[in-house]
Amino acid sequence: MANPIRVAVTGAAGNISYSILFRLASGAIFGPDRPVHLKLLEIPPAMKALNGVVMELNDCAFPTLAGIDITDKAETAFDGVNWAILVGSKPRGPGMERGDLIRENGPIFVGQGKALNKAASDVRCIVVGNPCNTNCLIAMKNSDVGNDRFSAMMRLDQNRAQSLLAEKSGRTVKEVTNMVIWGNHSNNQYPDCENVRIGGKPATEVIGDKEWLLGDFIKTVQNRGADVIKARGASSAASAANAALDHLLSLARPTAAGDWFSAAVCSDGQYGVDKELIFGYPLTSPGDGTWKVVEGLPMSDWAKGKFEKVLNELREEREFVKGLL
Amino acid sequence: MANPIRVAVTGAAGNISYSILFRLASGAIFGPDRPVHLKLLEIPPAMKALNGVVMELNDCAFPTLAGIDITDKAETAFDGVNWAILVGSKPRGPGMERGDLIRENGPIFVGQGKALNKAASDVRCIVVGNPCNTNCLIAMKNSDVGNDRFSAMMRLDQNRAQSLLAEKSGRTVKEVTNMVIWGNHSNNQYPDCENVRIGGKPATEVIGDKEWLLGDFIKTVQNRGADVIKARGASSAASAANAALDHLLSLARPTAAGDWFSAAVCSDGQYGVDKELIFGYPLTSPGDGTWKVVEGLPMSDWAKGKFEKVLNELREEREFVKGLL
Repeated sequence: MANPIRVAVTGAAGNISYSILFRLASGAIFGPDRPVHLKLLEIPPAMKALNGVVMELNDCAFPTLAGIDITDKAETAFDGVNWAILVGSKPRGPGMERGDLIRENGPIFVGQGKALNKAASDVRCIVVGNPCNTNCLIAMKNSDVGNDRFSAMMRLDQNRAQSLLAEKSGRTVKEVTNMVIWGNHSNNQYPDCENVRIGGKPATEVIGDKEWLLGDFIKTVQNRGADVIKARGASSAASAANAALDHLLSLARPTAAGDWFSAAVCSDGQYGVDKELIFGYPLTSPGDGTWKVVEGLPMSDWAKGKFEKVLNELREEREFVKGLL
Repeated sequence: MANPIRVAVTGAAGNISYSILFRLASGAIFGPDRPVHLKLLEIPPAMKALNGVVMELNDCAFPTLAGIDITDKAETAFDGVNWAILVGSKPRGPGMERGDLIRENGPIFVGQGKALNKAASDVRCIVVGNPCNTNCLIAMKNSDVGNDRFSAMMRLDQNRAQSLLAEKSGRTVKEVTNMVIWGNHSNNQYPDCENVRIGGKPATEVIGDKEWLLGDFIKTVQNRGADVIKARGASSAASAANAALDHLLSLARPTAAGDWFSAAVCSDGQYGVDKELIFGYPLTSPGDGTWKVVEGLPMSDWAKGKFEKVLNELREEREFVKGLL
């Protein structure tokens, strides 16, 4: 068997990680011939529960699970890892404003950014814990690891958008391509209904109902998280976990010709975004962990309004944490 | 793409199913070219939560997920299914005796056994909901589907035992083969330490510590469920889900030459077990859903004592529900 691939997961005793770890360990992500070594980070009060998760991982007798380390020190968790999936973050408490939440999470990602200096030279860091774009910005700015190694998750929004369009058009999800979620993983994200394609044709052509596309479609994607909580009585876990794994695989496998995927990465000014903001873009990857922003996509004035709104939100978030950058 | 494989899952809004459904839908179990149609059963009070799970399944945009039906009627859930995974059962309430639990669950499996008459002609039914052996017996006796189509899950115990032996011997789980869990998925199960092999040799030879093997090893496997609850603060879910999927795959793929797997099936008197008890045996399968009991395994007098104890427990369980058979 090949050398184990080393994957760190933070917030490892939480619900999203519970849906990530078993799929990682089962061989479903890196294949049946690639052993996986898990390095799991939690805060001290969650270590006992994490021990229970480790017992269950062992109880699966996965042939591809090469080892598990658990720790409450980020430096130990990230030591030598090839992938770091940063799931853990503080949830919003009662009466807490968005700005408070962002400021509360900041210090966690300062420390984790520094600790990523211990990772393998090929490390790729995926930030899932919310507010993921700004958490990613903080980690990146506090790390010596190259900016191109960081990304934040827009994939749950992309998958939700693709699924909705497939349902509306009566086509399969595979036929829905070229979906971009611009900007921030927040209620102000802009799911691009002008550039997405269904069966190779513009969705605006395939779905005659333009009012739905510009109205309910975008709102449904933006508010889907809250709708899942209402129905399930708990926030999205398995679907968020799946999105994190899809995000990882989109960096680890070549993008299909003509298609792209959505992730938030360090801007180099593309589409007029401030340099170094972690912004949701259309990306392609040759499958070696690197990526390129797809440039030159057209946008109507209406779309530009949505784009500016989410760009301003990310600028505001950056302002909240400027002392940490 | 091929015709969808139709899989029913009961207790579909519960924690074990939450860890089964996304792996089934992702293509990890039946492969990337075989679409899966999920048919999900819940009791009326859980339908809202189940709706939330369906939202999340859709939010994964799995290319292999061909469709999802949800219902609170077993006849609808099982209509035309190729596999039925019976996860749902009543949990033990405060002050409830084992006999009470068994009697409370009985009527559920009477109805589900009858409803399985609606399934496809190649249906295989896997009972996970506890007490799974006796629940399986009730379903089988109330169904016109052939007895050979029913099995109950011993695989979590098998996987736990393999993992423990791998850890103790410093070998990989793949090197631990020929593990039988005899009898009942209960504290009286007998994990066979005399016939299990490590790297092709008897475990008793590889692990010098016979006292551990006959004592702590067996006790640890028997009590592992309670130990996970203590650590995690919740009962085994992802590892139970994984065991159900391993069980399914052991029927859907050929058994490795010389090895076997553990599942509880309808006895034809093998090893002196009463005919029609659902008993944990060593099995092989050519991978078409059929199975054969591996006969003639030796047992010491000490092992025979363990075997008789668990056999008597299953006889007692049958007595509790004799009015339903």
